[in-house]
Amino acid sequence: MRKYFRLSQESRKRETMLGNGVIGILDESSNKWERRAPLTPAHCARLLLQSRNGTGVTRIILQPSTRRIYHDGLYEEAGCEISDDLSECGLILGIKKPKLEMVLPNRAYGFFSHTHKAQKENMPLLDKILAEKVSLFDYELVDGNTKKRLIAFGKFAGRAALIDLLRGLGQRYLSLGFSTPFLSLGQSYMYTSLAAAKTAVISVGEEIATLGLPSGICPLVFVFTGSGDGSTGAQEIFKLLPHSFVKPSELPELFEKAKDCAQPGSTKRVFQVYGCVATHEDMFEHKTNKEVFDKSDYYAHPEDYTSVFHERITPYASVIVNCIYWEKRFPRLLSTQQLKDLVSKGCPLVAISDLTCDMGGSIEIVNRTTTIDSPFFRYDAVNDTYHDNMDGEGILCSVVDNLPTQFAREASVHFGGLLSQFVGSLACMQDLTKLPAHLQRACIAHGGALTPLYDYIPSLRNSVDDESELSSLHP
Amino acid sequence: MRKYFRLSQESRKRETMLGNGVIGILDESSNKWERRAPLTPAHCARLLLQSRNGTGVTRIILQPSTRRIYHDGLYEEAGCEISDDLSECGLILGIKKPKLEMVLPNRAYGFFSHTHKAQKENMPLLDKILAEKVSLFDYELVDGNTKKRLIAFGKFAGRAALIDLLRGLGQRYLSLGFSTPFLSLGQSYMYTSLAAAKTAVISVGEEIATLGLPSGICPLVFVFTGSGDGSTGAQEIFKLLPHSFVKPSELPELFEKAKDCAQPGSTKRVFQVYGCVATHEDMFEHKTNKEVFDKSDYYAHPEDYTSVFHERITPYASVIVNCIYWEKRFPRLLSTQQLKDLVSKGCPLVAISDLTCDMGGSIEIVNRTTTIDSPFFRYDAVNDTYHDNMDGEGILCSVVDNLPTQFAREASVHFGGLLSQFVGSLACMQDLTKLPAHLQRACIAHGGALTPLYDYIPSLRNSVDDESELSSLHP
Repeated sequence: MRKYFRLSQESRKRETMLGNGVIGILDESSNKWERRAPLTPAHCARLLLQSRNGTGVTRIILQPSTRRIYHDGLYEEAGCEISDDLSECGLILGIKKPKLEMVLPNRAYGFFSHTHKAQKENMPLLDKILAEKVSLFDYELVDGNTKKRLIAFGKFAGRAALIDLLRGLGQRYLSLGFSTPFLSLGQSYMYTSLAAAKTAVISVGEEIATLGLPSGICPLVFVFTGSGDGSTGAQEIFKLLPHSFVKPSELPELFEKAKDCAQPGSTKRVFQVYGCVATHEDMFEHKTNKEVFDKSDYYAHPEDYTSVFHERITPYASVIVNCIYWEKRFPRLLSTQQLKDLVSKGCPLVAISDLTCDMGGSIEIVNRTTTIDSPFFRYDAVNDTYHDNMDGEGILCSVVDNLPTQFAREASVHFGGLLSQFVGSLACMQDLTKLPAHLQRACIAHGGALTPLYDYIPSLRNSVDDESELSSLHP
Repeated sequence: MRKYFRLSQESRKRETMLGNGVIGILDESSNKWERRAPLTPAHCARLLLQSRNGTGVTRIILQPSTRRIYHDGLYEEAGCEISDDLSECGLILGIKKPKLEMVLPNRAYGFFSHTHKAQKENMPLLDKILAEKVSLFDYELVDGNTKKRLIAFGKFAGRAALIDLLRGLGQRYLSLGFSTPFLSLGQSYMYTSLAAAKTAVISVGEEIATLGLPSGICPLVFVFTGSGDGSTGAQEIFKLLPHSFVKPSELPELFEKAKDCAQPGSTKRVFQVYGCVATHEDMFEHKTNKEVFDKSDYYAHPEDYTSVFHERITPYASVIVNCIYWEKRFPRLLSTQQLKDLVSKGCPLVAISDLTCDMGGSIEIVNRTTTIDSPFFRYDAVNDTYHDNMDGEGILCSVVDNLPTQFAREASVHFGGLLSQFVGSLACMQDLTKLPAHLQRACIAHGGALTPLYDYIPSLRNSVDDESELSSLHP
């Protein structure tokens, strides 16, 4: 113990606190719903325990919070100190960005900064970071050799999105005159755990299997786009309902078969829902060579491709869960005009959950985010108008950019488990070049300057104002 | 069977359908949330089966509905006929009032009419009923010898109210900066059953018992007024949490003891909530003789009494669940000015659930009802302003007048079970005077005239416009 005490004393004398082994954990201030922590009390206890073996984390100081999912007392019991003052910390961690006044000079910070696409709203923060000679590590940029992100919230966004969507369906169908089992579901945060939420979805599934759904809203087809964590997490919840998966090519036949059931006045019921996973091949087509779809060619020459989503899939979808990676150079999945045409002809689309949160992105009508308090807007495609309430014409759209915080406990356990692997290196870092490559690549700013990987930001910032509003999956 | 067929044939020939043994069940049209039915499929099956023994219900015709909690197919299986046309029915049943065009002449109707206090909004309906010579039986007026209502939704309003209130507390405390286990609870209708909702409350209770509540919001005291079904139902849910009941006289001591815990910056937690049942004796005081409280004297001379609720109880309440029976002649429980004074001095009151739905009644600030969609308004006592959102100064108030429909299935089972006992007599009734006394007393109109018990309505209607806006516990 004496050895570390001495180290710590010495480090305090140095001009910079960098690498002093003292970690600070921020009080999250971005949003009242932000209840996640970058490290749980258990992670902290483990890190402090390991410090005896020289792994480098000597102290952890936690800013108190009555909102964090783990209360201060649990961190205290784990050996952390509780203080608003993080000035003794060399490495300061959060989930979302800190307040400007919490950016202390010559320290390392880890959080989701949303600055590497020169996102306009975060540029004052980047300026402050540069001015204070902060070393900024952005979790989003820590990736391995396969370019897969190493510190992320994984499937939690997809899971929360689908639960919230099912709940929205219950409300929307009631508003349209149908009582459905979906009405017996709460929003994701209304459960004590992910397991409890899943149990509730299973109960809803049991009601569908035994009492059925009104034939007037069937076949009820959930379309999932993309194959990443978002889509996988959403499908994980969907699969708790009695379901079949159909291929996009099978959709017309499914509807043909269902026609009998849907006669008005029929008391027939439908006892399952349908899923349909749409791949790039299903959604996009080469403008001239329609026969073959070559994904590498699509990525290389996206301008040669066009979307067929509005023809092959949307006409049959009750629900679209959009999780594709998208950039402006790619063809749009569904335009405002295409949606208007489909609605005018009478399509069954009731709700869209857009996990991408790309404003005016792959689904053009999505031009605003929504909140956990009020997760849906209603889009009236015929009149091109947006509404806050549930009752009236239109399609429900959910565009929540902090979905995983609804499962604050499990999301923190998952995230902190990943982050724990890197915290030792970051807490002791005095020379950036001695860090592992994936951590070096995640360092946006160091010693008052942008690192070479990110020195494009100033020009991006000045030029492409539009682009800056597009951001990838939010944590 | 032949006998009843003959009867039915004969009755069709008569001018009136009254007493023909054919029951109609209305499609509820009052509100999108109205999913209850006056009789469940099981009740219908039993009534039709009993008809073989001569109890009088020969046919049941159900208006189809995709919103009713029991779907049409289940009624069909129970032997009911499905038709929008109820013209062959002598007795037509609903929960809430029918549309005017569904009032057919010379038939008996049973529903909650909310007309016997000359409620303004229902007078067109009463006029139509008189014009069509309808026999109107109002469930609310079927009472036994002890004056206790015989057909009612019992404890369901109280149960739903407390669950909704706990959920509101979670949201409100989050908005005030506190993460609490209450946040892990949905609204009543978001559960597949009352049992599932209770299980969720128990889980919240487990979190309170193990993880505790922030000391800054403790002691958390729930005050219940009144001792009827509403209060009992609410307490039934409250008791699922780790709790102690304290007497009103013990409240000051409870707060004295808690002072240590509530130090700012303390990481102490509190592992239970407190309940306090306030009787008339606790809430009201004789203006001159303060020593003794005589309840019969209070009812005889309410003008001699004044409320002490704002002195003895409100200063310690986090939550008030108001369930007292109140009329204008009684002293008011809590006035707008009293509440303003208490809030200005800093009282812990966070939320009020007013089950009475008496507008400007026992709690003066309650001047509007809320809906299942949006169950709270926020009242800023200092500025005397009302708001729809959660974030900002003020007290949450819930005033939902159709609470039991959130447990549509169990509420229908309970209600239909009670109603079933009376349906045979009503379905065969041809001579009002031959009905049991408690059913005769519930008949507001018959043969185009108000019955003697209710012939006061026209004068009430003309005179006391104000009074007509006060109504008792809604079903």
